[in-house]
Amino acid sequence: MENKMVVPSILPGFMELLPGDQIAFNGMMDIIRKNYEKYGFVPIDTPVIEKSEVLLAKGGGETEKQIYRFNKGDSDLSLRFDLTVPLARYVAEHMGQLTFPFRRYQIGKVYRGERNQKGRFREFYQCDIDIIGKGKLNIINDAEIPSIIYSTFKELGFDSFTIRINNRKVLNGFFDSLNITDKAEILRTIDKIDKIGVEGVKEDLENLNIDKLISEKILEFVSVKGTNEEILSYLYNLKIENVEFMDGLEELSKVVFYIAQFGVPEKNFLIDLKIARGLDYYTGTIYETILNDYPSIGSVCSGGRYDNLAEYYTKNKLPGVGISIGLTRLFYQLREANMLKASKGSTLSKVLVIPMDDSSIAYSINVCKDLKDKGIICQVYFEEGKLKKKLSYANMLGVPYVILIGSQEMESKILALKNMFDGTSETGTIEELIEKVK
Amino acid sequence: MENKMVVPSILPGFMELLPGDQIAFNGMMDIIRKNYEKYGFVPIDTPVIEKSEVLLAKGGGETEKQIYRFNKGDSDLSLRFDLTVPLARYVAEHMGQLTFPFRRYQIGKVYRGERNQKGRFREFYQCDIDIIGKGKLNIINDAEIPSIIYSTFKELGFDSFTIRINNRKVLNGFFDSLNITDKAEILRTIDKIDKIGVEGVKEDLENLNIDKLISEKILEFVSVKGTNEEILSYLYNLKIENVEFMDGLEELSKVVFYIAQFGVPEKNFLIDLKIARGLDYYTGTIYETILNDYPSIGSVCSGGRYDNLAEYYTKNKLPGVGISIGLTRLFYQLREANMLKASKGSTLSKVLVIPMDDSSIAYSINVCKDLKDKGIICQVYFEEGKLKKKLSYANMLGVPYVILIGSQEMESKILALKNMFDGTSETGTIEELIEKVK
Repeated sequence: MENKMVVPSILPGFMELLPGDQIAFNGMMDIIRKNYEKYGFVPIDTPVIEKSEVLLAKGGGETEKQIYRFNKGDSDLSLRFDLTVPLARYVAEHMGQLTFPFRRYQIGKVYRGERNQKGRFREFYQCDIDIIGKGKLNIINDAEIPSIIYSTFKELGFDSFTIRINNRKVLNGFFDSLNITDKAEILRTIDKIDKIGVEGVKEDLENLNIDKLISEKILEFVSVKGTNEEILSYLYNLKIENVEFMDGLEELSKVVFYIAQFGVPEKNFLIDLKIARGLDYYTGTIYETILNDYPSIGSVCSGGRYDNLAEYYTKNKLPGVGISIGLTRLFYQLREANMLKASKGSTLSKVLVIPMDDSSIAYSINVCKDLKDKGIICQVYFEEGKLKKKLSYANMLGVPYVILIGSQEMESKILALKNMFDGTSETGTIEELIEKVK
Repeated sequence: MENKMVVPSILPGFMELLPGDQIAFNGMMDIIRKNYEKYGFVPIDTPVIEKSEVLLAKGGGETEKQIYRFNKGDSDLSLRFDLTVPLARYVAEHMGQLTFPFRRYQIGKVYRGERNQKGRFREFYQCDIDIIGKGKLNIINDAEIPSIIYSTFKELGFDSFTIRINNRKVLNGFFDSLNITDKAEILRTIDKIDKIGVEGVKEDLENLNIDKLISEKILEFVSVKGTNEEILSYLYNLKIENVEFMDGLEELSKVVFYIAQFGVPEKNFLIDLKIARGLDYYTGTIYETILNDYPSIGSVCSGGRYDNLAEYYTKNKLPGVGISIGLTRLFYQLREANMLKASKGSTLSKVLVIPMDDSSIAYSINVCKDLKDKGIICQVYFEEGKLKKKLSYANMLGVPYVILIGSQEMESKILALKNMFDGTSETGTIEELIEKVK
């Protein structure tokens, strides 16, 4: 009976990696996870499918159109489109059993049926941390977040990156002082400055019927450059008598002071008055992270402070601060920019043990076991064939070392460790070779 | 403006854990992953959503009814219901870029809209390994699999478990020798023997109109007890002249011989002629794993050998052998049976640093940084309040150690490390305390 064949393929907009790349991807995810844990964040894992009524409680917006939503039986279901809404639901649902401030991380896939285009994914990993307070949350938490970004991106192998910091209250207070009513519109415009430039923003502000004088003030404000000290001075010297502005400025000063206490070098964080984060969600500190050598990638880690995490699920006020790394997109962009360290083959194995014939298989298994017992990832090649075929497997796999086992090796217990990268060989007992591989 | 409140809740049949349990769950997943990697398996990560046409190529069966299937735009989509079908698709799709034998592991969530009942989940983790050959795959691979099960369950903390082994060819050949035509039906009946007992199977066989004499022979066969040597002798002594039977018996002998070579103690693996694995998928070796103290849990790790992984996607014959651990169900059952090691609180932090007042925050941050630099997970409590409130946070979190920082500590640089479990304190410099915590 001949089966009906189906072409094996995945949906557009989904990322799937070959083993070598997958190893690199998982390596990045492990580094992120380890750093999140180092700072005392605990893991949670929420369902990918939730009740539509719950996930879409906030409703409206661009996101809703992108949601994978469907029915099963009587249930109206949706796939999660971020990890923040599930966090809000989780905290509200389990409030009595959590300890606040609640420091949680979550790394998982989220789903958005975006228009299909290069570098945009419909399934992607988000790696989030948030610190949630009950009623209130000290501003110093906002200063710790950049130290986690710093530690994580350093360990990911980046040297030159800048964590840009701003404060929504400073922006709001400033706009208030200019008697601007539709602040949200202005925020969205400023947010585009890296893409459309100062001239573009100027044009947009004109189209919004902003008075030319005010428009110039806004442009001067968001274009301020200098050290953190200089920018803070500039802001104080504006002498804006607006409660929100002064409140935000005090927060910003405190955050800048403590970020340094947390050990983030001055060159890695910078007040940047033009970052606004489009979302209406943030209410205080905001962050973006730029890889200085690849600014076109945009922010690789963003977030901020919000007043109330779970207003749709509970009357308890839950202020928080958090960040998210979009790992799938980051990985894709690093790969496109040839910034990923060259993959060392498609294996995690350090050693491949090759028996020359059937009679040396059992001994090969023992050699492999000795290596594994010492923490060296190792495998035996069991298939039949000529030596050439066996070595070709080692080459295709990209395994760094090979140990060949024949009757001579079994008798003498002296083995040869072949370095597959430079072709050299060293001989010794298994104990000696283990030391060499380590 | 008052928001419309939605009750924060998840769908029935989905598992969601509090942080303490989540830490335990992730600990188990890490052990499984580490063991899979130790044996030279490489990770892959396939999309949760695939084309229905691809996922359901095989079609029919119980599973199809349970699938989460829906449309988005013009696409007919399904959530994966296991990791085997995606593996088949992956291998067929990327065949030219993979190295065979291809040893892959995948740990991920799968979805089945099962009838809602205790201990059954609609979203659950599977942890799979498979070794896929191109054209053929040596039987010794079948003997390595139990050594991976052994190593994994040992490290998960289990001492008393049995990996049960059988071979489909032995069963098929035996049934052939009895002139039984509907072998699938008999296999399904035998598979239930642990649930319904010998008498139940006897009854079922009667209902299938199996001759009484033949029924007795089947029951004798599947009830054979003894050491592996004894069971192999019993099988040889049956002197069944059937090619499939003899082929299977030779495989089984070889697998048993090599399992011992791989270092699995005799007491942890046993030929068991009554395990059949209901699926029509397996063609040779089959495995089940039983926790001896909790047989009612059923098999916690099952799998086997199959002839052709991806027949619906490619004409290349891809034989393989693999196993799966259903982690969500396993975790649930261990928790129900109170077999999980008592959770040590809901934190990964070893130390909580508590500043007595605002002036000691910066110094506290430095102390915490020193601890983290030495690999000790640590956090600072930043919130305001009385000491009692701060210590109560430490207690609720379940953190093992607390360091209190006030003006005295800042001046003397002598800190007190309070053990939160026994209430004792030790004093010393930060370097001395780091040694103690380690």
